[in-house]
Amino acid sequence: MPETVSQKKCRILLDAMGGDYAPLNCVVGAVQAQRSLPNSEIMMIGKKEEILAVLQSEGLTFPESQIIHASEVIEMCDVPTQAIKNKKDSSIVVGCKMVKERQVDAFVSAGNTGAMMAASTLIIGRIKGVGRPTMGTFFPSQSFTTIFDVGASVDSKPRHLVEYALMGSIFAREIYGIENPKVGLLSVGEEETKGNEVVLETHAMLKKSNVNFIGNIEGRDILKGTAHVVVCDGFVGNIVLKFGEGVLPLLKHLLKEFAETSLWNKIRVGISKGVLKGALKSMDYQQHGGVPLLGVDGISLIGHGSSTALAIKNMIIRADEMYRHDIVGKIRNSINELEKEG
Amino acid sequence: MPETVSQKKCRILLDAMGGDYAPLNCVVGAVQAQRSLPNSEIMMIGKKEEILAVLQSEGLTFPESQIIHASEVIEMCDVPTQAIKNKKDSSIVVGCKMVKERQVDAFVSAGNTGAMMAASTLIIGRIKGVGRPTMGTFFPSQSFTTIFDVGASVDSKPRHLVEYALMGSIFAREIYGIENPKVGLLSVGEEETKGNEVVLETHAMLKKSNVNFIGNIEGRDILKGTAHVVVCDGFVGNIVLKFGEGVLPLLKHLLKEFAETSLWNKIRVGISKGVLKGALKSMDYQQHGGVPLLGVDGISLIGHGSSTALAIKNMIIRADEMYRHDIVGKIRNSINELEKEG
Repeated sequence: MPETVSQKKCRILLDAMGGDYAPLNCVVGAVQAQRSLPNSEIMMIGKKEEILAVLQSEGLTFPESQIIHASEVIEMCDVPTQAIKNKKDSSIVVGCKMVKERQVDAFVSAGNTGAMMAASTLIIGRIKGVGRPTMGTFFPSQSFTTIFDVGASVDSKPRHLVEYALMGSIFAREIYGIENPKVGLLSVGEEETKGNEVVLETHAMLKKSNVNFIGNIEGRDILKGTAHVVVCDGFVGNIVLKFGEGVLPLLKHLLKEFAETSLWNKIRVGISKGVLKGALKSMDYQQHGGVPLLGVDGISLIGHGSSTALAIKNMIIRADEMYRHDIVGKIRNSINELEKEG
Repeated sequence: MPETVSQKKCRILLDAMGGDYAPLNCVVGAVQAQRSLPNSEIMMIGKKEEILAVLQSEGLTFPESQIIHASEVIEMCDVPTQAIKNKKDSSIVVGCKMVKERQVDAFVSAGNTGAMMAASTLIIGRIKGVGRPTMGTFFPSQSFTTIFDVGASVDSKPRHLVEYALMGSIFAREIYGIENPKVGLLSVGEEETKGNEVVLETHAMLKKSNVNFIGNIEGRDILKGTAHVVVCDGFVGNIVLKFGEGVLPLLKHLLKEFAETSLWNKIRVGISKGVLKGALKSMDYQQHGGVPLLGVDGISLIGHGSSTALAIKNMIIRADEMYRHDIVGKIRNSINELEKEG
C-alpha cells in the first residue's frame, strides 16, 4: 500500500494489573515495548507502588511520570458488569475513561476479558452506526486467516455479521497487508442454501455488500486458510477458538502415551517434540499481540490471561500499528457508507 | 453391564453404491464383515451386475440371494430431497423402505449424507416423541468423548437439545460401555449464565432432566474429554467436526514447510511422521464405523464418503452392536418417559 501511515507520537496505556502474572510481565513488557517504539509514549496504569517495586527488583528504568496510579484492580473472577460499576478507580475503568477523553490513544489489558469488553463498549462507546463491536484474532492456518467474532457477542443478527465482515476486512488489510481480503461466511456447507436462518440471511446481505465475499466456507476451511476473514457469530467463533487451543495439549497427551509403549518410541517422541515446536511456531499466540475489539470509538486490545512479557510487548506494538493505520477512522468511514446504502 | 444382549440373527443391509469408492470398497467390506459376524446376515443393495463383477474380480464369494438389485443410484452431488423423490429405485430409498417394512434390521450407507438423513427420517420415520433425529460421533480426546449433534439439524430448540443429550447418553452407555455418561452442554463459558438464548434455556431443562448433566463446557473441553456426551446444535457441531478434520492436514503442511528449512530438519521430520502416525491412531475415523442417526425408528448409519473397506466393515459391525443392544427400543422408552414428565 502506497498510503503513508501516521508518524505522530502515539500514547499507549497498558493495564499493569492485567493477567495472571501481573504486574511482573506487564512491567517488563512495557519497558521492552518502549525500547521498540521510540516514537511512541508507553504509559502504565495500576497500583503505583507495585509497579515501582517490579521496576526496582528487575533493575529496569521507566519514567515515573508515565505511571498512573489506580487504587483498585478488577480480578479475573469478578463479574464484569458489576466490577466496572463498583470499581470506579480500577485500572480498566480509568484506562477506558482516558481513551474516551483522548488523554491516550490506546488502552491495552491482559486482564478480565469480559470487563475489558464491557468497559470498552460502555465507557469508550461504539462508533456511530456499529450495532455490536467484534473481537477477532489471527488464526493459524495453511495460508492466512483471521476470525471475527470470537466471543464479543452471541445471537448476532445478520446486520451485525456484515459489520464484522467489514471491520475484519479493514483489520486484515491494514495490519497484515492483505489486499482486498477474501471474506468467508462460516456455515455447514458451501452452497448458499446451507446454514441456519441467520447465516442464510447474512449470505444474501454479504453478496450485495462491498466486502470481497467468497461465499460460505466450512469448518475445515478455517485451517486451510480459504478465507482471510472468517465471519461467524461469537458463540461459534469462541468455541472454535477454544477448541483450537485444545489441539496442542491433546497432541502432547497422545505423544506421551505413545512414548510409554517402548523405549524406542520414547526416543522417537523426544526427537518429534523438538520438530513440532519448530514447525508449530506460527501457532504461538504471543506473536500476535492480543485481540482487538473493533467497533468501539478508540483502540482497545485484550490480551490472553497468561500473557508473557513478550505477549504484552507485542500487544503494545499492535496498538501502535492500529493507531498509525487509523483503523478506527477507517471503520468509521466504512460503517458510514454502509449506513448510506441502507 | 450384566444385561444380556440379543443373540438373534441381525439382518444388516449395506448400500453397495455408497461412497467415493463404491462398489469396490463396499463389496470388500461386506465380505469381511460377514466373516466377522457369523451370527448375522449381511445383505447388499445396488446394481447387481456391478456387485457381482467386483466379487469376481476380487475373487470373493458372497451368497447371491443376499444381493438385492436396485436400478438407480443417488450420487454425492444430488440434491437430497429431490433425489429421494425422483429416484424411487435407488439403493438408499429402497434400503430405508426395507427397514420400515422390517425386512432388514439395519441399513448402512457411505453415500450422500443428506439423502441418507432425509430418507431415514421421511421413510423409516421418527420414534414417537422425537422432535428431531440427531447424528453423533465419537471424537478423539484425552479421555472419551462423543458429540451430538454434528449436522442433522440446525436451529435446534432447547427441547431438541435435551433429546440429543438423552439419545447420546444411551449410545455412549450401550456402545462404548460408559456407565452413567457425563453430559456437557457446549457453550462460551462454564457459568450457567453464559451462552446464547437457546443454551441458557437448555441448561435449565437439562438440570431438571434424568441425564447426568455436568453443566456447560467450553470448546477446549471437547479435546480434554471433560464430558462423555457433548451436546450442541448441529450448526456448531458440524463446524467443530470439520474443523477437527482440518487439524491433521495443517500439521502435515507445517511439518512439510519445516522440513524444507534444512537437511537436518528434513531427517527429523521424517522420524516425526512415523511417530505421529502411531500416536494419532485414535483419530482414525475408520475405526469408528460411521455415524448413527438416532431418533429414527430403526437403525441407520451413515459412513464417510471416502470410506475404505475397513471403514465399511466397521460400520456394519456397529450396526450389529446397535441391534444387539436394542438402542432403538431404549431410545423409545426414554423419550416416552421424557414425554410423561412433560
